[in-house]
Amino acid sequence: MRTIDRRQQVIDSAEKSFALFGYKATTMEQVARLANVGKGTIYTFFENKEELFDEILHSIITDMKQITEQTVKEENSFLDNVHLSMDSLLEYREEHDLLIKLFQEVNDFGTPQAKEGLLKVETAILEYLERQVSRAMELQQIREDNPKLVSFVLLKLYVTLTSDWNKAHPTLQKDQIKDFVGLFLKSGLSPT
Amino acid sequence: MRTIDRRQQVIDSAEKSFALFGYKATTMEQVARLANVGKGTIYTFFENKEELFDEILHSIITDMKQITEQTVKEENSFLDNVHLSMDSLLEYREEHDLLIKLFQEVNDFGTPQAKEGLLKVETAILEYLERQVSRAMELQQIREDNPKLVSFVLLKLYVTLTSDWNKAHPTLQKDQIKDFVGLFLKSGLSPT
Repeated sequence: MRTIDRRQQVIDSAEKSFALFGYKATTMEQVARLANVGKGTIYTFFENKEELFDEILHSIITDMKQITEQTVKEENSFLDNVHLSMDSLLEYREEHDLLIKLFQEVNDFGTPQAKEGLLKVETAILEYLERQVSRAMELQQIREDNPKLVSFVLLKLYVTLTSDWNKAHPTLQKDQIKDFVGLFLKSGLSPT
Repeated sequence: MRTIDRRQQVIDSAEKSFALFGYKATTMEQVARLANVGKGTIYTFFENKEELFDEILHSIITDMKQITEQTVKEENSFLDNVHLSMDSLLEYREEHDLLIKLFQEVNDFGTPQAKEGLLKVETAILEYLERQVSRAMELQQIREDNPKLVSFVLLKLYVTLTSDWNKAHPTLQKDQIKDFVGLFLKSGLSPT
């Protein structure tokens, strides 16, 4: 059990370091110090920083999958499910300093590994959305279209409303976002 | 007339340099060399690189305004006008190496001046869109909502379809984009 604890200690410290200093500025030495293990010990678990980062991204994606599985209910409409899951995923992102730091790092320095890491998270969300979208198309809850494209547009719409908009305007309330998306996906901009 | 020509020569060379090497890597010396004027001459027109950059952005925004004024027709529906203007603006962006380079620079290095420059261009597009959106709301061609928010979502939707999507998928044809946006703004994802 001692081995597992120390491995987890290393992972937790690495996540802390990535979240505080970003991907680029994190070193294996730093992680070892934070985890209170020797420099040799850390290499028995992970060969390099890339491996550690991958492990953390993997657990983030697993977390996100669990969250969406818990929020989505089969008896709900497509719109309700999409909204519930996007809402909880974006909340998860807001609560995770690591993800926020990665976004900042990509924005400020364009660190390729940070960019790739975020792309992995985005891909996982898109795969999940695509399954929901395809199912809703089969059930004729939404119109037939390219499920990949529709999922992509849906994700970008949520990111637009929850992140991009805030950069120059007051943050939208959750209900405002829900109402806007609900109306938009139902009838676009058509007069009511 | 000689003075005006040389000033324009400096501006053209600066645009070339910004487009080739980006904002950060461009120097006044380089621009002077490209323009074939002395280092002293360039400073009689522009105090520094920032001023030159502002001048170029200003002329880009003026160009864009002219383009939209030429494409938009009062007798058209809101959707047609939005589509015509977005289409020509995004085409303009694609044809302008400077704008493409700035996007790359922001993406790769996060250069603040490049970011600010693009933000200025985006703001000009949003102001234009907002006028179109407000007018369409008044005429009840589209439903009442926050015109700023609707304009923002519209611009992001076009950027999603014309730029973001291409990064990992085959480029959409112009007609595909037009059809998708048309349907989306008319009836969201509702079954047809």
